[in-house]
Amino acid sequence: MFQTVAIAGVGLIGGSFALALRRAGFQGRILGVSSPRTIERALASGAIDAGAALEEACREADLVYLAGPIHSILEIIPTIEQWLKPDALVTDAGSTKGRICAAAAGWQRGQFLGGHPMAGKEVRGVEAADASLFEGRPYLLTPVRPGQMESGAARELVQWIERIGAEPNVLSPEEHDRTVALSSHLPQMLSTALAATLGRNERAAEIAAAAGPGLVDSTRLALSAWEIWHDILDTNQPAILEAMDGFTAAWQDVRGNLASGKVERDFVIGAAFAQYLREKR
Amino acid sequence: MFQTVAIAGVGLIGGSFALALRRAGFQGRILGVSSPRTIERALASGAIDAGAALEEACREADLVYLAGPIHSILEIIPTIEQWLKPDALVTDAGSTKGRICAAAAGWQRGQFLGGHPMAGKEVRGVEAADASLFEGRPYLLTPVRPGQMESGAARELVQWIERIGAEPNVLSPEEHDRTVALSSHLPQMLSTALAATLGRNERAAEIAAAAGPGLVDSTRLALSAWEIWHDILDTNQPAILEAMDGFTAAWQDVRGNLASGKVERDFVIGAAFAQYLREKR
Repeated sequence: MFQTVAIAGVGLIGGSFALALRRAGFQGRILGVSSPRTIERALASGAIDAGAALEEACREADLVYLAGPIHSILEIIPTIEQWLKPDALVTDAGSTKGRICAAAAGWQRGQFLGGHPMAGKEVRGVEAADASLFEGRPYLLTPVRPGQMESGAARELVQWIERIGAEPNVLSPEEHDRTVALSSHLPQMLSTALAATLGRNERAAEIAAAAGPGLVDSTRLALSAWEIWHDILDTNQPAILEAMDGFTAAWQDVRGNLASGKVERDFVIGAAFAQYLREKR
Repeated sequence: MFQTVAIAGVGLIGGSFALALRRAGFQGRILGVSSPRTIERALASGAIDAGAALEEACREADLVYLAGPIHSILEIIPTIEQWLKPDALVTDAGSTKGRICAAAAGWQRGQFLGGHPMAGKEVRGVEAADASLFEGRPYLLTPVRPGQMESGAARELVQWIERIGAEPNVLSPEEHDRTVALSSHLPQMLSTALAATLGRNERAAEIAAAAGPGLVDSTRLALSAWEIWHDILDTNQPAILEAMDGFTAAWQDVRGNLASGKVERDFVIGAAFAQYLREKR
């Protein structure tokens, strides 16, 4: 049973995980590792019980939740092994998993289990944290060996993920990275490319003046923060380029089908997938 | 002053325009031209005062609002001129304007002024009609000659558009079609192409299981009805193909920038346009 949970990086995701744990009945202590200003806000919001230095938090925690940016997770992993309790579970919420899981693969102490909650908001920071952020959302877990899911701590993490309303889904780090390249990184690149090409258009003001709700939806992802995407692109570039090239081929097909009056099939298949996606939820 | 308004095609848009007119204080009579089943529903919702045949409605109306699909607007235009009151204004809500405005260009009786409210919903039909559908949305008007906006009836239409909370915006039919090819048709084709390529992927189920809110937003337009898009693609194909080719070039640039570590600029320009779009609203 987790008695103490340490959240390293108390932002939107880390803060929401803490609030969600509380609402789901977690009775133990939640420590936050962040800047003094963030700790102050996290204490005020009730997300954490106390702030702590990373070393102190790792020495006390049964579950360490790394919720910072990918580059900070990659920096933290090699430093914390020495401080962990022997049975401690460390998980993270980074958006790519191959490099992160590889960084912890040699650990002799504690256990690392990569994670990726498929939830987010346009706004960041602990002020936007929300106990219901994970409700109804997939929560991907990426063991490097299937047996990893059988430890007591891993089973308990899965239970908490279910209690906060998310849907745990297990796959390898490599499968994860290829899958999210298609499900998440490709839509981001399309939204950014669409917004950038319209923004560069000499008639950008007229285009914006004629925008309906469709363009607003289509450019929502383009608002995403570059600092986050820098890390994602940096740690999943080959899979993203492959997804982009696959889209280029599909786009050329759709263009050809439009020109030759045969694009109905693309609309039917696209609508079916969009509908399927919504029924899954 | 409009005493009688005829709505030909009392669906989501036609029904919402009628409800919006009422809420904005229109005191005259609203006639609906649709199938008997739709007229029954439109009467029940309070959108219209009575059903009528197209000829009867056109003989009585000061404003005729063509809200059906583009192909039905194109069929109606040549038939109704003979029935119009000499000062009647006919407008429409079709999503493309070049072909529609050209069809009425030779009218000797009444006045035709093309329109395009940039509003919609995924659901269709008069049951989904909503008096606030046009609030805060652009409402494009496409005179074939600038002087057309100066007639009494055109001025009154602009006033009603403002009273229902929409923002009138005047441009030529050709400018309209090139602009919406970028602001509306390109996002639709991207959403359809994305959903179709993921739907055709052998790992479509895993991709859907890993979907976050970004993919849901990015595939919303892919749910659009083919019947509507058939007409749009059919009447604006050259401008849409041009917009698609422009996107292909931009997409290749973004791909190259990602591969060479220079994609930050695309994120910055994309985010700025997405933000600008929202501030405009």
